[in-house]
Amino acid sequence: MAGNSFGKVFRVTTWGESHGTGIGAVIDGCPPGITIDTERLQQEMNRRRPGQGGASSPRKEPDVVEILSGIFSDEPDALPRTTGTPISLAIFNKDAHSKSYAHIKDIYRPGHGDITYDAKYGLRDYRGGGRASARETAARVAAGAIAGQVLEQYGIRVLAYTVALGGVKITSCDLGVIEKNLYCCPDRIAAEQMEQRVQEVRSAGDTLGGIVEIRAICPAGLGEPVFDKLEAELAHGLMSIGAVKGVEFGAGFAVADMLGSENNDPITPEGFAANNAGGILAGISSGQEIVMRVAVKPIPSIGKEQQTVNRAGEPVSVKIGGRHDISAIPRVIPVCEAMVRLTLVDHLLRQNAIKLPNI
Amino acid sequence: MAGNSFGKVFRVTTWGESHGTGIGAVIDGCPPGITIDTERLQQEMNRRRPGQGGASSPRKEPDVVEILSGIFSDEPDALPRTTGTPISLAIFNKDAHSKSYAHIKDIYRPGHGDITYDAKYGLRDYRGGGRASARETAARVAAGAIAGQVLEQYGIRVLAYTVALGGVKITSCDLGVIEKNLYCCPDRIAAEQMEQRVQEVRSAGDTLGGIVEIRAICPAGLGEPVFDKLEAELAHGLMSIGAVKGVEFGAGFAVADMLGSENNDPITPEGFAANNAGGILAGISSGQEIVMRVAVKPIPSIGKEQQTVNRAGEPVSVKIGGRHDISAIPRVIPVCEAMVRLTLVDHLLRQNAIKLPNI
Amino acid sequence: MAGNSFGKVFRVTTWGESHGTGIGAVIDGCPPGITIDTERLQQEMNRRRPGQGGASSPRKEPDVVEILSGIFSDEPDALPRTTGTPISLAIFNKDAHSKSYAHIKDIYRPGHGDITYDAKYGLRDYRGGGRASARETAARVAAGAIAGQVLEQYGIRVLAYTVALGGVKITSCDLGVIEKNLYCCPDRIAAEQMEQRVQEVRSAGDTLGGIVEIRAICPAGLGEPVFDKLEAELAHGLMSIGAVKGVEFGAGFAVADMLGSENNDPITPEGFAANNAGGILAGISSGQEIVMRVAVKPIPSIGKEQQTVNRAGEPVSVKIGGRHDISAIPRVIPVCEAMVRLTLVDHLLRQNAIKLPNI
Amino acid sequence: MAGNSFGKVFRVTTWGESHGTGIGAVIDGCPPGITIDTERLQQEMNRRRPGQGGASSPRKEPDVVEILSGIFSDEPDALPRTTGTPISLAIFNKDAHSKSYAHIKDIYRPGHGDITYDAKYGLRDYRGGGRASARETAARVAAGAIAGQVLEQYGIRVLAYTVALGGVKITSCDLGVIEKNLYCCPDRIAAEQMEQRVQEVRSAGDTLGGIVEIRAICPAGLGEPVFDKLEAELAHGLMSIGAVKGVEFGAGFAVADMLGSENNDPITPEGFAANNAGGILAGISSGQEIVMRVAVKPIPSIGKEQQTVNRAGEPVSVKIGGRHDISAIPRVIPVCEAMVRLTLVDHLLRQNAIKLPNI
Repeated sequence: MAGNSFGKVFRVTTWGESHGTGIGAVIDGCPPGITIDTERLQQEMNRRRPGQGGASSPRKEPDVVEILSGIFSDEPDALPRTTGTPISLAIFNKDAHSKSYAHIKDIYRPGHGDITYDAKYGLRDYRGGGRASARETAARVAAGAIAGQVLEQYGIRVLAYTVALGGVKITSCDLGVIEKNLYCCPDRIAAEQMEQRVQEVRSAGDTLGGIVEIRAICPAGLGEPVFDKLEAELAHGLMSIGAVKGVEFGAGFAVADMLGSENNDPITPEGFAANNAGGILAGISSGQEIVMRVAVKPIPSIGKEQQTVNRAGEPVSVKIGGRHDISAIPRVIPVCEAMVRLTLVDHLLRQNAIKLPNI
Repeated sequence: MAGNSFGKVFRVTTWGESHGTGIGAVIDGCPPGITIDTERLQQEMNRRRPGQGGASSPRKEPDVVEILSGIFSDEPDALPRTTGTPISLAIFNKDAHSKSYAHIKDIYRPGHGDITYDAKYGLRDYRGGGRASARETAARVAAGAIAGQVLEQYGIRVLAYTVALGGVKITSCDLGVIEKNLYCCPDRIAAEQMEQRVQEVRSAGDTLGGIVEIRAICPAGLGEPVFDKLEAELAHGLMSIGAVKGVEFGAGFAVADMLGSENNDPITPEGFAANNAGGILAGISSGQEIVMRVAVKPIPSIGKEQQTVNRAGEPVSVKIGGRHDISAIPRVIPVCEAMVRLTLVDHLLRQNAIKLPNI
Repeated sequence: MAGNSFGKVFRVTTWGESHGTGIGAVIDGCPPGITIDTERLQQEMNRRRPGQGGASSPRKEPDVVEILSGIFSDEPDALPRTTGTPISLAIFNKDAHSKSYAHIKDIYRPGHGDITYDAKYGLRDYRGGGRASARETAARVAAGAIAGQVLEQYGIRVLAYTVALGGVKITSCDLGVIEKNLYCCPDRIAAEQMEQRVQEVRSAGDTLGGIVEIRAICPAGLGEPVFDKLEAELAHGLMSIGAVKGVEFGAGFAVADMLGSENNDPITPEGFAANNAGGILAGISSGQEIVMRVAVKPIPSIGKEQQTVNRAGEPVSVKIGGRHDISAIPRVIPVCEAMVRLTLVDHLLRQNAIKLPNI
Repeated sequence: MAGNSFGKVFRVTTWGESHGTGIGAVIDGCPPGITIDTERLQQEMNRRRPGQGGASSPRKEPDVVEILSGIFSDEPDALPRTTGTPISLAIFNKDAHSKSYAHIKDIYRPGHGDITYDAKYGLRDYRGGGRASARETAARVAAGAIAGQVLEQYGIRVLAYTVALGGVKITSCDLGVIEKNLYCCPDRIAAEQMEQRVQEVRSAGDTLGGIVEIRAICPAGLGEPVFDKLEAELAHGLMSIGAVKGVEFGAGFAVADMLGSENNDPITPEGFAANNAGGILAGISSGQEIVMRVAVKPIPSIGKEQQTVNRAGEPVSVKIGGRHDISAIPRVIPVCEAMVRLTLVDHLLRQNAIKLPNI
């Protein structure tokens, strides 16, 4: 109801504020008996932490995940396995300077949730954005990493990368170069142009938007036919990321200009002959690659002077100092992957619930 | 779980197949004491029925809604009011010719869910698309009309219209002309061009995609901050419409090319000075108009010959005869409105649940 | 939220008022491919209808169930099978005389929900108890009969019978005689005494309470360990029957007087050596028979004069005429079975969801 | 789904094993702006900790609750208030000796969930009962204490006490003496007899059952009419406590022997003239005191030798050493209060959701 949970069978609940004691997630419904590799869990966290990628600020926070429950080695030298009980994950804050936020306590920063939180709750934890901070997504990445280890057992894999940043678009796509540049970009030349664009904008105290594409290899038959279509729930998950303002599947908004005869993917004995559908038909995965893209808005915290009001409704101007990221890209990439993983693992387990009741 | 329900407080469950006995919806959680105007409910249904708009086939189905429960006149001459108990709505099929579908019983039509339903369920009601048929949306429109009558009491209003069809885009927006053309288009000249485009494509046996924009007037404070952001749930609802392949809010995909200083909406004592956010900040409505757009794919049932396979995996060609619509637009427009209404009424009641526990 | 749904995977939503158009249930989440025997569904309904058993009034209502969706014969002569889509069940009212209830429109009948419905909703459908009528349970029995046909495929069977009525308790238990007397009583002699007790009380215009016992044969491993223990959800389902005021499992309230050494069921290589636990340990079925009992209150509609108030708070006396049942027993018996079946089928499918995610 | 959450609006999810890192609860949906008295929260914890009451072992565990999120002082000297975001509560284990459990790693203790956990999950955290340990209820008490502070604002109060222990039943009820004896018993003389009974049984290495009564002062109008009747959800919550094997409301199982004319509570202009209904009519609170009783089984860990099997199915005998409680009473009393509080706060907020949608 209050919306801090995601998923129905593999249900994740996140808690914590940017500058409180810490943040965390509780996973209820993880299947038992899954071996968990805690090192890979931590590696996933490291991809999201500040200082990653060229558009990020150079700050360092370790984001060490602790697993408080739900995982157990029942034999002396065995790797820990999930027990089927709740997995509690916590990331305690090391570096919370709440005093530095006192000056924006009563100011509504443009593009932020300060004004809407006050409208909804009547009070808010103003330290670093509180619950609206991107820091909350660290808990999602931790839970998504567990989901990823479950999905691997079913051959389901998810990969996200940058296809546009600050107006620079990729013109080729070589997934092999994604990890070789600061922007997780599959086009080496575009990555260099992105770097240039970031440097320009950094010196101007401004920020940049972009587009992330996510692909998932997934068996046929996941998803539900009506309100919980796989696209609907993936869109739900992806649009729940603060910076995302649009989502599209397969041909996406381009379908508006297409004929039915162009858009329909022919089916052959060898499989589909095209993938305008983005791997989903009537809400259910077809076995083709699931392909989706999200529009990422520029980070609203900018170094330029902006016009706004305070809690009393009086006009004030605000200029947000400190070392801020130039773009949510690339740090939002593991968050996109996490939301897709969480959606897929939930549908994987739901699907099973309906289809195969064989004890 | 099986996804035939939408909403948490105002919860709608739809049932029924295209060519079965009928279709319907049960609303659980409608507040008591709301006067229901059954004539306006039926008018809303009429907007969605076949034969509406220039891109529709000339068929006629009445789609008469019956209210089976949940509404009662407790005084002899009073208008019926909701009692707070489930509202059961049914639309019985008058015109089901299931025999005419026997020839596609074993064929997977391109762009349809035939192949994915079989992957998921192992069997399907092949008559007219069964549960995947657009006919299912009639039940949504009926439930959405009830939601609309609840929302009106809070001054919340929703309006959808066509901004692109078959490559024709609007260049002006006069909401006053929407009801004066066959395409629910706010640009009279574009509407004429759309008509031309439809005639061309009709004779070619093909179909068209387009874009629908939806606006909602809505108070500040609706939505939840994390996974159930208002955008996330609106996207969930809109992406659950079969023909929709993308959704965006405010500036939408255009944010990818914007600077933070351009995209942030300045706040003044008189209100926001722009609306790139589309009326939602950090997942919560800001009091500005909520603005969203959906990409509508061309209808997959086309008169042209297409390559596909049958259930045995053998190649076959298929040509879908009969009188089909050229575009889901304009009939999808009341469905978009319904999904936005159902999302907003649910958040309206949820919001209240958390904020004001005063018995 | 508004509580007209039961179950999480096999989710039943009921609708309808006692004297409205009809009542019904929508099942969302029934697995696909289950053959449905509609004759046995109707037989189950007949067990609940008025005129059954010695404590019932001689009235006759047919309670004919219609299946409006979710079941399909995909081959010409095949029996209908579930498709995995919502199963809509309706029982249309044949015999609704709403005028005869006008005289109690403003009176709060003792032991009924008239006063609490008004407190909660501010208005109510006063015709025959509206939604609080026992008639609502007909929809549960219909849904429970579908659940029963799913459970049979897993060897799960549920049986309920009378162990006490009007102070008469069974002293022997022969399940073979249950169907041979009017009270579904496994003790032939007690059944005769119950008949005598009913006749005495009928002439006095009064009503009787009793106790129903329910047994389920069920594999080990169903249930969840913490809040959704199998006992907790069975208790939820059984306590949701209007007439039920208590529920107990295995030794039940007798545990209060037992020692740990008496109450613990020893475990042997051949199985448990006793069943004080009632077939459930730590919330999960042990493979033993699940045994539970419910306390059924006397029907509140009595022919004797009673003191109460009207909506204005003024004292009035009321005497409820017409042919009413003397006890909810035996008509409540198929309702108890339905609630146990609905709980077990939901746990069966949930269990599977968590344990065996193998597509 | 996996059942580690309770409530729909005020939703509590607990995590943690008896001998793991710790246990905790996340509350999602607590209304904002509620002042939290953390000292009283800790006092509530202390009532449940070991060493309380005469039937408990003398062990000491502090059970210190830490609030990790969701509470904030937005003014320098203000008391902390809820922000409407998730409240994360943790109790870290200080005293976990997991080695001492290695000898029961492969043995199924009678009356415990060892055997059913293995049937369900295939593995289990065998240290101290893992998730099935009574220790899990400490997290419930912490969450229930927060719920209690919300309820107080609406005049809702909950009180539990012992009415039977080891065969000793109360014969008088003076709520003033509850806190003045080790058994939370409202009858001073019965409390002394309980003490005697406990001493007898302690020396015999055995354990005792009993009955707890819970009362709640609550306004009219809480609860839902059909499946989520207030009794049904209270029963769900209370039956989810491991030691509870039965629950009854008002006259409870005694209704089986009552006439309708005895059982119906007459209504007068001054209120109800009796309370056989236990404060609930047709699933909705009537404004009378809600009265319920639960049957508490003897603790299954006994010092006597018992027959059982190991994981290989071979017969073994087991004798559970260490300092164990003689009865779950009185430590289960704050747990019963917690479950009633959690149920009532959820219905309070749900009720509001449906009834008063006035932003």
